[in-house]
Amino acid sequence: MNEGGRVARHTARDLRSENRFEVLHALFDLGPSSRQELARHTGLSQATVTTLVGEFLSEGVLTIAARERTGVGRPYDRLAIDPGRGRIVGVDVAETYVVAVVHDLALGVLGEGEVALDEHENGQGYVVDGIVTAIARAVEAGGTTRERIDGVGVSMPGHVHPGAGVSVFAPNWDWHDVRIEELLAARLELPVHVDNPLKAVTLSEMWFGAGRAVDSMAVVNLGTGVGAGIALNGSLIRGTTNNAGEWGHTLLELDGRPCRCGRRGCVEAYVGAAGLETTLAALAPDHPALGLGGQREFVAAVAEGLLAGDPAVAELLARTARFLAAALGDLVNLLNVPTVTLTGWMSRALADWLVPAVRAELPRHVLPGSLPGLRVQASPVPGNAVALGMAAFTLEQFLARLGLASPARARAQ
Amino acid sequence: MNEGGRVARHTARDLRSENRFEVLHALFDLGPSSRQELARHTGLSQATVTTLVGEFLSEGVLTIAARERTGVGRPYDRLAIDPGRGRIVGVDVAETYVVAVVHDLALGVLGEGEVALDEHENGQGYVVDGIVTAIARAVEAGGTTRERIDGVGVSMPGHVHPGAGVSVFAPNWDWHDVRIEELLAARLELPVHVDNPLKAVTLSEMWFGAGRAVDSMAVVNLGTGVGAGIALNGSLIRGTTNNAGEWGHTLLELDGRPCRCGRRGCVEAYVGAAGLETTLAALAPDHPALGLGGQREFVAAVAEGLLAGDPAVAELLARTARFLAAALGDLVNLLNVPTVTLTGWMSRALADWLVPAVRAELPRHVLPGSLPGLRVQASPVPGNAVALGMAAFTLEQFLARLGLASPARARAQ
Repeated sequence: MNEGGRVARHTARDLRSENRFEVLHALFDLGPSSRQELARHTGLSQATVTTLVGEFLSEGVLTIAARERTGVGRPYDRLAIDPGRGRIVGVDVAETYVVAVVHDLALGVLGEGEVALDEHENGQGYVVDGIVTAIARAVEAGGTTRERIDGVGVSMPGHVHPGAGVSVFAPNWDWHDVRIEELLAARLELPVHVDNPLKAVTLSEMWFGAGRAVDSMAVVNLGTGVGAGIALNGSLIRGTTNNAGEWGHTLLELDGRPCRCGRRGCVEAYVGAAGLETTLAALAPDHPALGLGGQREFVAAVAEGLLAGDPAVAELLARTARFLAAALGDLVNLLNVPTVTLTGWMSRALADWLVPAVRAELPRHVLPGSLPGLRVQASPVPGNAVALGMAAFTLEQFLARLGLASPARARAQ
Repeated sequence: MNEGGRVARHTARDLRSENRFEVLHALFDLGPSSRQELARHTGLSQATVTTLVGEFLSEGVLTIAARERTGVGRPYDRLAIDPGRGRIVGVDVAETYVVAVVHDLALGVLGEGEVALDEHENGQGYVVDGIVTAIARAVEAGGTTRERIDGVGVSMPGHVHPGAGVSVFAPNWDWHDVRIEELLAARLELPVHVDNPLKAVTLSEMWFGAGRAVDSMAVVNLGTGVGAGIALNGSLIRGTTNNAGEWGHTLLELDGRPCRCGRRGCVEAYVGAAGLETTLAALAPDHPALGLGGQREFVAAVAEGLLAGDPAVAELLARTARFLAAALGDLVNLLNVPTVTLTGWMSRALADWLVPAVRAELPRHVLPGSLPGLRVQASPVPGNAVALGMAAFTLEQFLARLGLASPARARAQ
């Protein structure tokens, strides 16, 4: 179907670059595959696949995993991404921790390093030191060296605008226009790519999660901060200043609870970790889960309370599910996406209770025309989805750099 | 910049179809143009433009408006859409009226026909009769005949799902799965294409309004119903069941005013025409603007009150602007669009007061990273934007039918 007013301007160069990623995605989806299987899966012509595979092989990105023969036919190659070609680091910087993960080129996890951050101390030097230390630990755990790393992708909370000089504006940290990409590249002596966790979790969902079955979705991140990564028709929605997805700062209640963004009544003030503390404090001011010091300890205590059948915590979960269903209803009514996944550290801790409770509430908030077939689920992406998504972005950048080495050939096709 | 995870699958056929529309859009933007100007404006190669123009000329869609010569060079043609090639009807069906507009093939307005609908009487036969009568009036006013009409595009309020058998679900009318496209095609004996006003206003904004300068925007429709058409990166966002854009049914206030969709606290209950009646009734229960009978009469009385400096009506406008700014803030925070236009009959009546008041409130609701460069304005699209958008969809369908007549040639390229 033609989409009215579409003004996509594709040059042969753009298409070629997209086709590269399609072949790569197909290998992630299918595992080791023949050229014919790749052509069938991507919808590209056999000739295009053969050309792209030839380039990938000469760059060492692909390897021939096996040579097979069916019946009396000619032998054919089964191709795979060469995991040994290089190393990619993905880093998830949150208010309470840094997690760095070393991946091989097939985005398999080799090793992880973690540093706890005090959510009340967020100076630049403190955070940069945490990132560098977490990466060093991950490199050691992964049994690799800095020299083998092709690139580092770092997710920073807040507003990250790679196009405008990789500056960070994180409202809760009071960082303004910090050139974190340059700071880190100088410290690490490696190519560094900085983006926002909403974009990272969406990319990992598209490559390794719900996106394997659908091409439009919202990926809802619940933690200290709250937001929704959005993919529509296979494209990640960034917005004009890479600030799309701030669903945590849409209204649940005009003039409601104060939000740390300065507005009142935002979704984050109800379904972020601090929002749950506020809800429980109103229900049971003396509850022992309150006043444990950190948000992660609080959420762990909530999960324990749910397991133990604590009635105040059960009521907290019911209210939170109602808030979350209302806010997800808004997202679905506006975007009519078929799939919503929940991700982030708080989702992982509470999904077993939260997902069924939200599903039960949701029909009260979604328009009848958008409800049939709607799926709400915990994200199936394994491991740290932010670090994985940042590794996937960094892999794309690495492949793009390889592609840029031969612009004449690319233009020739 | 590569967008992570993009899985667009373009065949030569798709690209060709998109390229056709690009040439057409360029002619709408530029007016009569040479092949060279079209190539420069679209970014397509001169050879592609020459091929497409050749086909358009042989189909009679384009005409040579002038033959010119610069200096000593070869003469060149200035091409234009041939307005005389056919007639396209766009129809805007709302709760309170039907407006039908006859356009020439260059989407110039030839004639208009209107029928008032009683917002309390919305049986199928009553509405279908209204549509047929409005079209007959428009055809007469446009000095044309049914035989010259290439297609009819009809916008219906509610959920219109063209892919699933052109059924309509309009909650306020209590219509369920009405096959209006078939009903109308049988009555009119013409090709009929039905869609939703949010999609229609967005297409007309993309072709003839703010979309001439930006390729991402929200087009906010204010009337009896309220919604937002969304275009991102040049694509109209439809959602999985063509139900995207139901911003009117996102929350302003959890458990707030009852909304006719069955939920409480929806944006529509505050900034739709009935929402303004509710707000004024709370401020000044005996105000003469209330109880005039129809929503259009009420809004006209509000506009008169604003002109006359009526303090209750001024307070109504201030509260409405605050509600609207909060709800637009949500839209901008989620999608990070650079442009929001206001359209619809209520916007047209109140824009002179509403737009500046909303602009003043908006910084309180938009995240700092999404505020710079944000434009909020009344839609610059002339005339009935719903009817124009439906005519543009119908023109696309007409061109697609022409294209389908020669699939072998299309595949050959």
